[in-house]
Amino acid sequence: MEHDGVRIHPSALVETRYVGTGTAIWAFCHVLEGAVVGRDCNIGDGCYIESGARVGDGVTIKNGCMVWDGVTIEDWAFIGPGVVFTNDLRPRSPRGPHARARYADDGWLARTRVGVGASIGAGAVILPGLEIGPYAMVAAGSVVTGGVPAHALVAGAPARRRGWVCACGERLAVEDEVARCGACSRAYAAHGEGLVVVSSAVGG
Amino acid sequence: MEHDGVRIHPSALVETRYVGTGTAIWAFCHVLEGAVVGRDCNIGDGCYIESGARVGDGVTIKNGCMVWDGVTIEDWAFIGPGVVFTNDLRPRSPRGPHARARYADDGWLARTRVGVGASIGAGAVILPGLEIGPYAMVAAGSVVTGGVPAHALVAGAPARRRGWVCACGERLAVEDEVARCGACSRAYAAHGEGLVVVSSAVGG
Amino acid sequence: MEHDGVRIHPSALVETRYVGTGTAIWAFCHVLEGAVVGRDCNIGDGCYIESGARVGDGVTIKNGCMVWDGVTIEDWAFIGPGVVFTNDLRPRSPRGPHARARYADDGWLARTRVGVGASIGAGAVILPGLEIGPYAMVAAGSVVTGGVPAHALVAGAPARRRGWVCACGERLAVEDEVARCGACSRAYAAHGEGLVVVSSAVGG
Repeated sequence: MEHDGVRIHPSALVETRYVGTGTAIWAFCHVLEGAVVGRDCNIGDGCYIESGARVGDGVTIKNGCMVWDGVTIEDWAFIGPGVVFTNDLRPRSPRGPHARARYADDGWLARTRVGVGASIGAGAVILPGLEIGPYAMVAAGSVVTGGVPAHALVAGAPARRRGWVCACGERLAVEDEVARCGACSRAYAAHGEGLVVVSSAVGG
Repeated sequence: MEHDGVRIHPSALVETRYVGTGTAIWAFCHVLEGAVVGRDCNIGDGCYIESGARVGDGVTIKNGCMVWDGVTIEDWAFIGPGVVFTNDLRPRSPRGPHARARYADDGWLARTRVGVGASIGAGAVILPGLEIGPYAMVAAGSVVTGGVPAHALVAGAPARRRGWVCACGERLAVEDEVARCGACSRAYAAHGEGLVVVSSAVGG
Repeated sequence: MEHDGVRIHPSALVETRYVGTGTAIWAFCHVLEGAVVGRDCNIGDGCYIESGARVGDGVTIKNGCMVWDGVTIEDWAFIGPGVVFTNDLRPRSPRGPHARARYADDGWLARTRVGVGASIGAGAVILPGLEIGPYAMVAAGSVVTGGVPAHALVAGAPARRRGWVCACGERLAVEDEVARCGACSRAYAAHGEGLVVVSSAVGG
């Protein structure tokens, strides 16, 4: 177990070798063999991280989240409490005769990626096979059924875009395809479906 | 304890005698005295199955589900991660003076049934006193406030019917009250509010 | 540990001194140092009560709830299974460089109060910084994005007022700004945004 510099609560079950230095894994968590968790993460009570899941560096995962096979969470993302990921668009019990063919191989597995610095609000449900863009923000309680552009703020069930957010968390007013954050002064320009930073924060 | 051939994770608490052969109960689960769990089930981490709950054979229950007194889950059903059942339409704390009369008997208890082979998507909330029909599919994140016909696909909050699904999980196009699955060739006819299979899958 | 007359399941982790007599804390719960839980409460399996959270007397908290710093739950409230509270309107991972300034102090913390005798239905998500009024009822699966008046019944995502409820749990028909409960005979009058009781239950 390469767990030097990792804090693991005595009640947590950590079966993977791949947990980075500086990470804390709290009570009643279960991290399965082969799951990858980066450095300097904080994994709240009762999280489940399955074989095949990948969590980057500096990620915060609040309590009670399940990160399945096929889910990748990039560096510095925030996953709120009780967020539910999925990896199967039409799940059936593989134990009955009616759907056994569906689970003969892993063709059912749909992968999800949460981009750098993105935030998923508490209790959100993320349908499978989606990309949540860098620094996007999903409002608490949303049901996300489509991709989310970089820096977009989405809310609702199904989640729709309601605005834009800065890397620092503040809302952005986008005018003429450019925006500047009133809080940290980062500047943005339209880029594809989302925004991209064109000037860094003062002192940041 | 009649637990021959049952796999129970060392951290799980299984207080009932009624768990069928071939069933696995994973970490941090709590199955209370008198709860009934059938054969060949898979009960994911952190599930709670209360006295009075009944789970059939070949059922898959993903992590973090709570199956209360009054909830019956029939054979081969799939219950996604973080699904929330309920059994009280107007809950109050029975510990305050204001609602003590409500809990003098079990008249508050409203029963739920999930039919054979049905699927409840991740994070769905199921209001009490409902029937989810056989092979129905509830989309992830739905809030189910009424009954769901056999083979219906429902989604949203409140959940509405958006289509039909085959036992195998594929969508069905219903025309002139009949349908045939493009994936497994099962044939269906309208029956009551839902569908019923009239011809089996080839080789299935 | 001042835990005379408190029932704590052997698998629960209770690190606070402040749990009142008659309270039960069930399996896999984690109550952190400095959290306050009153008398005669029932805290279901897998709940997490953080330092800075305050729970009154006679409160029922069903399984899997997380009560964060900044959340106050008053006497006799009911918190349904899988209810998700929040305390940060624009969460980011404090571990990345992009949002470190946001967490330099506790200016991000938005407080929530659940009033006396109120009920939060199963799987509801409560945005931060809100007041849920006394005896209000939040329907299961709701996403609450604004304050809820006393005795209001709210539902949906976002939650909207759909009616009024009595302290005893029954619906109230409000006419000419007054109402009387058909079940317990309590009488109400309009008061501010909500209702207030003007005549007690017979025998209650």
